[in-house]
Amino acid sequence: MTLNDTHDPALTSWVDSANRADADFPIQNLPFAVFRRRGTQEAFRVGVAIGDQIVDVHALRTLRVITGTASDALEAAHGSTLNRFMSAGASAWTTLRAALVGMLRGDSSHRAAVEPTLVPQAIAEYALPATIGDYTDFYASVHHATAVGRLFRPDNPLLPNYKWVPIAYHGRSSSISVSGGSVRRPHGQLLAPGADKPQLGPSRRLDYEFEVGTFIGVGNTLGSPIAIESAEQHVFGLCLLNDWSARDIQAWEYQPLGPFLAKNFATTISPWIVTMEALAPFRTSWQRAAEDPQPLPYLDSPSLRSGGAIDMELEAFLETKRMRSDSRPPHRLSRSNFRHSYWTVGQMVAHHTINGCNLSAGDLLGSGTQSGPQPEEAGSLLELTSGGKLPVQLPAGETRTFLEDGDSVIFRAWCERAGQRRIGFGEARATISG
Amino acid sequence: MTLNDTHDPALTSWVDSANRADADFPIQNLPFAVFRRRGTQEAFRVGVAIGDQIVDVHALRTLRVITGTASDALEAAHGSTLNRFMSAGASAWTTLRAALVGMLRGDSSHRAAVEPTLVPQAIAEYALPATIGDYTDFYASVHHATAVGRLFRPDNPLLPNYKWVPIAYHGRSSSISVSGGSVRRPHGQLLAPGADKPQLGPSRRLDYEFEVGTFIGVGNTLGSPIAIESAEQHVFGLCLLNDWSARDIQAWEYQPLGPFLAKNFATTISPWIVTMEALAPFRTSWQRAAEDPQPLPYLDSPSLRSGGAIDMELEAFLETKRMRSDSRPPHRLSRSNFRHSYWTVGQMVAHHTINGCNLSAGDLLGSGTQSGPQPEEAGSLLELTSGGKLPVQLPAGETRTFLEDGDSVIFRAWCERAGQRRIGFGEARATISG
Repeated sequence: MTLNDTHDPALTSWVDSANRADADFPIQNLPFAVFRRRGTQEAFRVGVAIGDQIVDVHALRTLRVITGTASDALEAAHGSTLNRFMSAGASAWTTLRAALVGMLRGDSSHRAAVEPTLVPQAIAEYALPATIGDYTDFYASVHHATAVGRLFRPDNPLLPNYKWVPIAYHGRSSSISVSGGSVRRPHGQLLAPGADKPQLGPSRRLDYEFEVGTFIGVGNTLGSPIAIESAEQHVFGLCLLNDWSARDIQAWEYQPLGPFLAKNFATTISPWIVTMEALAPFRTSWQRAAEDPQPLPYLDSPSLRSGGAIDMELEAFLETKRMRSDSRPPHRLSRSNFRHSYWTVGQMVAHHTINGCNLSAGDLLGSGTQSGPQPEEAGSLLELTSGGKLPVQLPAGETRTFLEDGDSVIFRAWCERAGQRRIGFGEARATISG
Repeated sequence: MTLNDTHDPALTSWVDSANRADADFPIQNLPFAVFRRRGTQEAFRVGVAIGDQIVDVHALRTLRVITGTASDALEAAHGSTLNRFMSAGASAWTTLRAALVGMLRGDSSHRAAVEPTLVPQAIAEYALPATIGDYTDFYASVHHATAVGRLFRPDNPLLPNYKWVPIAYHGRSSSISVSGGSVRRPHGQLLAPGADKPQLGPSRRLDYEFEVGTFIGVGNTLGSPIAIESAEQHVFGLCLLNDWSARDIQAWEYQPLGPFLAKNFATTISPWIVTMEALAPFRTSWQRAAEDPQPLPYLDSPSLRSGGAIDMELEAFLETKRMRSDSRPPHRLSRSNFRHSYWTVGQMVAHHTINGCNLSAGDLLGSGTQSGPQPEEAGSLLELTSGGKLPVQLPAGETRTFLEDGDSVIFRAWCERAGQRRIGFGEARATISG
């Protein structure tokens, strides 16, 4: 089997649920997470999703069905975080992927050994997939930057540096949690309209931001930039990321050094990291509009132009307490696509390191809110409600400007293209508590 | 011996160098670092400074001269980082301090056993004292904020939030290094005056910022703020911190989300962490000028008013390549005092967590550049040279606006007060390489 065969849409698995057309996790995907059986005291360990099941790397190791160089890669993936496997690099990732496909494909002789060790996703709970040393948040959607800029600086929405510099700031690692929990509404200094002094109180303008997260695999040495041509060799994979934001705290605190308490109370990520290799069939060309500045050479390359962007559909949903008690499905707030991003993942890595800054395995880069060009493609309530002025209409007469206690925000994403199997990201979900 | 006796200025040590009046590390200090013998492959381990020697905690453990509850504290301090000891909390810190004083005081019976295990600081090299999960940089000097604000925003130097909000942003953990190394001049996007597009190049306005670093000892749970009255129980100690800054990169990139590549290429800290207990005799009252807003209740307390500030002298020196070859001593650029800080360490901790953000043992808080009220007390070249317009005069006719390759920047600090032994911080030093 050649490696490219791992994308063959005709491949099926002996795990039947992986073969459904709407499955997030067909055999062509094989994303990684850290999990255990919910409610147990089991050690958290690395798992790989296939259909509605999880391949338990710890169990797999004792089965000895993966041999040769792939067994070294499996060994690197064994543990309570993915950091070691991330740092093992592209050849380990590719080797293990090929071995897992061989083990899970319909005609594999390993079904009898492996099937009893699978863990249903329905009974799993997740931990963060990696120890995240540093978390950086970019601002890579020009549509978001323009829309938000208009609200904070009506006279000057898009600053002169935006189209030259992939703007970013450092975020808080300690408050990143995996999907499924709750987020406590933050208190902070709020300056009421017209007031001459701030007061401490709970945020009244609590919002989500729909971002794509990038996990760094192979780091770089302090002082040694990563060239754009090799930038993606340093990237392990992508996840979904909710950069919870308290707009009222942000408006008062953010000048001159950027957001701090408005953001660092919580960040939620999806449990599954979809590898760059699984995303290979969904790469798409990247170009800068003729009227925009072309990127400086350290942010430009032929491979960026031919396939630097990723065609990835993004959907945000809201589920209120009332929807839950009425058994209504979550309400879709917006839909967009990561291909609209003004800056690509490779450009983020090259820019982040151009000054010598060192990235490490497990570092997380947020893409910034991924709003599309149309107003209904906005990735935050701030944008969807024009700064809280025009409430979003929900089923059964409910409305929202910002989030209320009991609201759950759910992100989903997937890639699809004619002639390819759909590659899904699962979901990132959390519920606001008071 | 009661615990307060550890500050008794009459206490002397059998380590003679600790008894010199100008010693940084008398028996009343006992700061912590992580060290090994330079040029060896020894494991890095925790050490305590006494005079010009280091108490080797690893060796001390096998001597069994520290017993009882203090031996539990010693056990927590044993390892390649201080994180476990930091998280052990104030009673462990106090207990070990008392036991170390008992062991090192002039009349101790343990001299014969301990003396052979001491390591001279002259042959030591240092590692970071802790694994730093998150690094936050405050902006706590109103004199710095005003002076820099004037340069970046002449019409609007001090923003309206400054006197209410302890402004801060998240920094980069991965590029923090311990004193003694080199810092590579960063490359980045630079917008030349009058140019209509940026170019990539080496920073020409490379600067230092003199800050005081705070190491968190005991963290808090996500969602649970730390009250100002108990804030300092969460603080392990202080160090010196150089927040290297590329002013030209900063000017172009920093809006709207704050500094990023202008700062994250390097941060240098001193190896020794001076504990809050050692600093107890140098606490000083804190008050807000009558014309300034009084702090919101979550940032105010009686103990803050009576002794929230720290009387700590700060000195920055420059040593050029030429000074080294001429065997001239480093040139003092400025002197200031941490008591001028507009916000205290306790206020930084209370503010950082008011929204529920969780701090962890080993987290580092920078104070922001500690400039005093007088122009010659400024903690950066940006301020000392009025934005690069008025060069600093150095010996032998040299001048500087910003740092040149081969320049070493050296920070020193100490506390002194009548009737107390001087408590020093050692130094934080690094040299610019091209």
